[in-house]
Amino acid sequence: MAEHFSDRLVRAIRAKKSVVCVGLDPRLDKIPESIRSAARAVFPNDILAAAARAIFEFNKGLIDAVADLVPVVKPQIAFYEMFGAHGVQAFADTLKYAKSKGLLTIADAKRNDIGSTAQAYAEAFLGTTEVFGEKVAAFDADSITVTPYLGWDGIKPFLDVCKKEGKGIFTLVKTSNKSSGDLQDLAVGVGGAQTHALYETVGHFVESWGADDVGDEGYSCVGAVVGATYPEQAKALRKIMPETIFLVPGFGAQGGTVEDVLPCFNEGGMGAIINSSRDVMFAYEKSEKFGPDDFAAAAREKVLEMNEQLKVVFA
Amino acid sequence: MAEHFSDRLVRAIRAKKSVVCVGLDPRLDKIPESIRSAARAVFPNDILAAAARAIFEFNKGLIDAVADLVPVVKPQIAFYEMFGAHGVQAFADTLKYAKSKGLLTIADAKRNDIGSTAQAYAEAFLGTTEVFGEKVAAFDADSITVTPYLGWDGIKPFLDVCKKEGKGIFTLVKTSNKSSGDLQDLAVGVGGAQTHALYETVGHFVESWGADDVGDEGYSCVGAVVGATYPEQAKALRKIMPETIFLVPGFGAQGGTVEDVLPCFNEGGMGAIINSSRDVMFAYEKSEKFGPDDFAAAAREKVLEMNEQLKVVFA
Repeated sequence: MAEHFSDRLVRAIRAKKSVVCVGLDPRLDKIPESIRSAARAVFPNDILAAAARAIFEFNKGLIDAVADLVPVVKPQIAFYEMFGAHGVQAFADTLKYAKSKGLLTIADAKRNDIGSTAQAYAEAFLGTTEVFGEKVAAFDADSITVTPYLGWDGIKPFLDVCKKEGKGIFTLVKTSNKSSGDLQDLAVGVGGAQTHALYETVGHFVESWGADDVGDEGYSCVGAVVGATYPEQAKALRKIMPETIFLVPGFGAQGGTVEDVLPCFNEGGMGAIINSSRDVMFAYEKSEKFGPDDFAAAAREKVLEMNEQLKVVFA
Repeated sequence: MAEHFSDRLVRAIRAKKSVVCVGLDPRLDKIPESIRSAARAVFPNDILAAAARAIFEFNKGLIDAVADLVPVVKPQIAFYEMFGAHGVQAFADTLKYAKSKGLLTIADAKRNDIGSTAQAYAEAFLGTTEVFGEKVAAFDADSITVTPYLGWDGIKPFLDVCKKEGKGIFTLVKTSNKSSGDLQDLAVGVGGAQTHALYETVGHFVESWGADDVGDEGYSCVGAVVGATYPEQAKALRKIMPETIFLVPGFGAQGGTVEDVLPCFNEGGMGAIINSSRDVMFAYEKSEKFGPDDFAAAAREKVLEMNEQLKVVFA
């Protein structure tokens, strides 16, 4: 029996005394020239292969720099798909490398579809696919972000794999972007006092979807994405979803502060992880101390700073 | 200036007298043994490469068989991602091959994210990415399916690329699956008579998102996914979105009939395309006339049958 995903995550948070998730959203033009030209020298006639190699080398540097400091990393697949199949291979390699360094992984892919197709996504990202009689794990992430618009039967296939393999999902509930309210804030349910926002309804769904598979540490394998940019909504959602781990984007570059993310936590600093992507990956850009070739050291310093800022949640 | 996506689609429908979209959702275990073993012989030591080759060879057979009969094909990326980067390459190759045979393409990927990430997806699937100073199109699909849960700023980056490149999107509105109503049917908007279902609100969004970029044939580059399994809802949505092309899944295998999809059309058979995946791809399974190696002939016969059934929409 595989260890429950939420137990693995909670124990990693406790062991590393960190609630930070490092987002790995590479931007080729921000990768140091030394890495870019080395990659081009390896693949002089294939710029997509060279781009993918540069991305993976950059990610390896970041992962090495932060592996002992944080419980989890989150590559965003769009930034890999830009480079086609080569980019997707770099995405898979990044997940594998992070795992080899003792990190948990979130495939930030926001997948969603009807049941039979959701099953294919679940097998691809979290489980295994039968290929000519052998079971092959295409990506083998520990967890994946998903979108709830198709309802329960688009979620269930993921949960079947989660239970079997000790994996998890993070469902979009209240996202960090400006127009997240277009749909998510709509008032739902007619009849006076019973109305609430759509994101609250989705919060209730998420809590119920995970309710029958709660780990020893008190959390289910169904997490929720709740943006740091909406602290009031996070407060309401924390009450609706006591057994749900929040993945919180929007900290730092998007405007979320330490104070903004406090409502995402339960007692003792549990129940949430705070993502930072650009601020960590490209910390060298805002640094007087570090140049591009010191990107890893700059990222490490930034993560140490975040851990220090966020240690208040453990109080 | 690139030709408008909706004009390209409407003209292809008219030229081929067909509203059928063939879904390309390969299942390795249903691909004829002759193709599977030939692929394994090419890649004896790499089962994922062999699987990807088998899928692409199978797809080529299908595309050759239907290219003169239908306007558009729709590969569903989950069934390729199961085979990792090799599978994603087969997905890209399938799009390219379909295009070379004069077919329009829909990348069924249901992508969604905040603005900066949505832009990465848009560049990956519809546009170009700058790679070491060169512009590279990773997938170069004519259109992509997207999910609206993040609102306008997750849609806009796609539309920027659509306008520039003559591409389109299909936004999930009312999906064909059983629990589509979990979120999509929720009553939205408080205050008596003004309430309606979430899918209707999304329909209004979709119509407005495309309103400033309507092609010569009267449709915008923002399409809508509306399931064949919900004809009443389709009727309401057709009124809400007069300038929106519907991509209609759920016909055949999922239970939708010709009668069910009629409300999706405007006058003269325009404004909707009807997808069929399994029924066409694996038509040989239900046939007494065709064996596995005749899968292409069986698919062709099935598409001819669908075209005949659906010609009523042009009346």
